[in-house]
Amino acid sequence: MFEKIPKPVARRLAIYYRVLKEQSKNGAETISSSSLGRMLDLKPSQIRKDLSYFGGFGKRGTGYNVIDLMKSIEKILGIDKRWNVLIIGAGKIGRALANYPGLIQDGFTIKGIVDVSEKKIGKTIDEHLTIEDVAEMEKIIRERKIEIGVLCVPSDVAQKVLNSVIQYGIKGIVNFVPKRLKAPKDVMIEDVQISLSFKALSFRMVNSER
Amino acid sequence: MFEKIPKPVARRLAIYYRVLKEQSKNGAETISSSSLGRMLDLKPSQIRKDLSYFGGFGKRGTGYNVIDLMKSIEKILGIDKRWNVLIIGAGKIGRALANYPGLIQDGFTIKGIVDVSEKKIGKTIDEHLTIEDVAEMEKIIRERKIEIGVLCVPSDVAQKVLNSVIQYGIKGIVNFVPKRLKAPKDVMIEDVQISLSFKALSFRMVNSER
Repeated sequence: MFEKIPKPVARRLAIYYRVLKEQSKNGAETISSSSLGRMLDLKPSQIRKDLSYFGGFGKRGTGYNVIDLMKSIEKILGIDKRWNVLIIGAGKIGRALANYPGLIQDGFTIKGIVDVSEKKIGKTIDEHLTIEDVAEMEKIIRERKIEIGVLCVPSDVAQKVLNSVIQYGIKGIVNFVPKRLKAPKDVMIEDVQISLSFKALSFRMVNSER
Repeated sequence: MFEKIPKPVARRLAIYYRVLKEQSKNGAETISSSSLGRMLDLKPSQIRKDLSYFGGFGKRGTGYNVIDLMKSIEKILGIDKRWNVLIIGAGKIGRALANYPGLIQDGFTIKGIVDVSEKKIGKTIDEHLTIEDVAEMEKIIRERKIEIGVLCVPSDVAQKVLNSVIQYGIKGIVNFVPKRLKAPKDVMIEDVQISLSFKALSFRMVNSER
């Protein structure tokens, strides 16, 4: 049913999801495509088209039921289940992610964080996370049923680390290393580029000045 | 000339830019839309269309000159100049950003980091950055000619902090707070959602399993 949803639509669904969550916290029961559009600076027609991929259930006049829409998007995005996540590399980014509240809220449970440095191994990140030895990675992945690996290692070792992670059975990678990495076709890699948002901003600033 | 470039195109330009930079480091002089497409899993026709916004200069057979294309994209994205950046909030994310090498490489210079906590003020992040008192923010923004503020504060104070930052003359915000904030029309806010990449990944994993 959802197979045909293009990637940009999936990303927009994730953005709608965040707004719906906010709205539901504020007690909203329904939301129209035009108010969603206003909040997100998107055309209501775009939103209706995106939601129609899974049989949009907006009603003329009242709009979409917030909870129903959230549940549908959760299913489509695969966040109606919990995902077990291992962070590889306990540098600044890795440690920051280890207790980033947004992840656990959306169904991504950090089950461990590993590093190669003896100075870091054994140190606690918060009450329930201690940096473990990367040599234990295979055991950790298998025993804790890790499904997603988050790569936060130095660029020059990234491909090597990725190869091991894949060998241990991981099929999904969030890559914070600023480098494109190679993986077999059945392994999904999602590159995170923090500086992309900075560039998108500078683009808008330069263009608004004109 | 660039005014009509839509936001998604700007984001893709930033993605092309990263690959071009990589290619130029590897010594490549030209690149074709089809090899760019292969690397990025995009259709060559899409790439040619995006680049045509600023008068694509690809040559049939040889493709685009890597350096020329990089320079043009730099200009369009506004990263042919350096931007002065202030990080507001020295929590884990703020500190991780403070010496994230990708930012300085792309023209974003971190000129300071401020926090409200007395425990944090005075601590050094790296050789050239010390956490300063948020009470000094106005002075720092004016004296160091800060153009971009990076919001890494707790959700419940985010709007209040943003209001001050805007009052002190900042026109561009990168927002790491998982909350949509309000600002006057001439202030640009770019929301960063770290969990978006995780959701995009789980979407792909769920859909590839089907």
